[in-house]
Amino acid sequence: GMEGAPSPASPAGLSAYVAVSQLLGLTLLATTGAWLGRYRGGVAWHSPLQFNVHPLCMVLGMVFLQGDALLVYRVFRHEAKRSTKALHALLHGLALVIALVGIVAVFESHRAKGIPDMYSLHSWCGMAAFVLYLLQWLLGCGFFLLPGASFSLRGRYKPQHVFFGIALFALSIATSLLGITEMLLFNIRDSYSRFVPEGVLANTLGVLLVAFGLVVGYVLTRDDWKRPPLAEELALSMDFKTLTEGESPGGGS
Amino acid sequence: GMEGAPSPASPAGLSAYVAVSQLLGLTLLATTGAWLGRYRGGVAWHSPLQFNVHPLCMVLGMVFLQGDALLVYRVFRHEAKRSTKALHALLHGLALVIALVGIVAVFESHRAKGIPDMYSLHSWCGMAAFVLYLLQWLLGCGFFLLPGASFSLRGRYKPQHVFFGIALFALSIATSLLGITEMLLFNIRDSYSRFVPEGVLANTLGVLLVAFGLVVGYVLTRDDWKRPPLAEELALSMDFKTLTEGESPGGGS
Repeated sequence: GMEGAPSPASPAGLSAYVAVSQLLGLTLLATTGAWLGRYRGGVAWHSPLQFNVHPLCMVLGMVFLQGDALLVYRVFRHEAKRSTKALHALLHGLALVIALVGIVAVFESHRAKGIPDMYSLHSWCGMAAFVLYLLQWLLGCGFFLLPGASFSLRGRYKPQHVFFGIALFALSIATSLLGITEMLLFNIRDSYSRFVPEGVLANTLGVLLVAFGLVVGYVLTRDDWKRPPLAEELALSMDFKTLTEGESPGGGS
Repeated sequence: GMEGAPSPASPAGLSAYVAVSQLLGLTLLATTGAWLGRYRGGVAWHSPLQFNVHPLCMVLGMVFLQGDALLVYRVFRHEAKRSTKALHALLHGLALVIALVGIVAVFESHRAKGIPDMYSLHSWCGMAAFVLYLLQWLLGCGFFLLPGASFSLRGRYKPQHVFFGIALFALSIATSLLGITEMLLFNIRDSYSRFVPEGVLANTLGVLLVAFGLVVGYVLTRDDWKRPPLAEELALSMDFKTLTEGESPGGGS
């Protein structure tokens, strides 16, 4: 039967979905490496291969690490909130640094080849995603890690933080798909329509990116998989309710 | 002050966000029309312009109408659920028919020009989005419009329906961005990097598509904007709870 005691502590399907997301994430990275290594000459910094640092860093930072940073509240559901929060901020910070390296790579590669910057839809979406992601990270640190913000302010910002976090993740994946399409049309425009292996491999990378986004998105938004508050957090929020119910409205900072 | 009695009947910000979404949606359609009309020779069926039917139909069906179909439960929050459901199904059905016309247009245009089908990442994502959208529509009709499905079955399917509905909307927008990039790189590859007006206009269309997706997504996922159950629906669900609490587990189909 289906009963088999799924303890409320760790929902039955969650671990399976997280495992699938990590398999997809590693496959993503391997596929990106295979594409760049086998068909695009590999990756190097001070060389004509510098461009190839860009897709590698963006898939690693803006997709894989960003996605995993979103998952930490589902995976470490019984750790103290403060540690999970620190890990969440750390993974996003690492993603930002790696993405910055990837952005520097494409600007330097453009300069070396005399190609203009920021003219394509890919570059517009990508720059918007990166700048908003950095802003989201700064706001997140300000509201949730620094001691200044009140409980009530944090509570009001949190739904915005969650919505924009998932939206920026989706935009990052969409931007990666645009980058794949640009690379293929610049490099194998004429043979792409003959289903050459490079085209099929890069398309498959696109499908894997969408699949990773879907699985991470599903894990994040499923109601009964949300992180349950720990006993001491519940006690705190009770105190908070008692306090605010006596508060006069309109006093906020 | 901020107090000014926002009646629980119609949340204060909701109407403003819905208005912005509709302005963005109409701007989307106008921008698509301006691009095709001014730079791509216009739209016609039995002609070399048949391809242009494709972007027009896809933006209208898979983005604007699909988005509006998702919004009906927020906009018509006090109508009987049955009427809103019918409108939801009808708008998605209309979107599917228009999208099908757009798909026929690109296949016929490819045949006339001797271009192979289904080799690009855009075509893979687009075909997946269309087929899954059709499947989602059929499942939605089966579970929620036909009388066969039990309350309990509907309740278990609904969160999946909502998640995949939003995910397919996001995939449809991402696919549109891929289509814009393909069109630009096929048509104005060399001048695109000189910021010619067509490139800037098409990039702007891409940004508008992302903005439409963000606003619709925000309206859909904001907790306090969800459709409140009507009094008679609450009564029904009470009956249902009473019934199911007496039920033996594990009996479901």
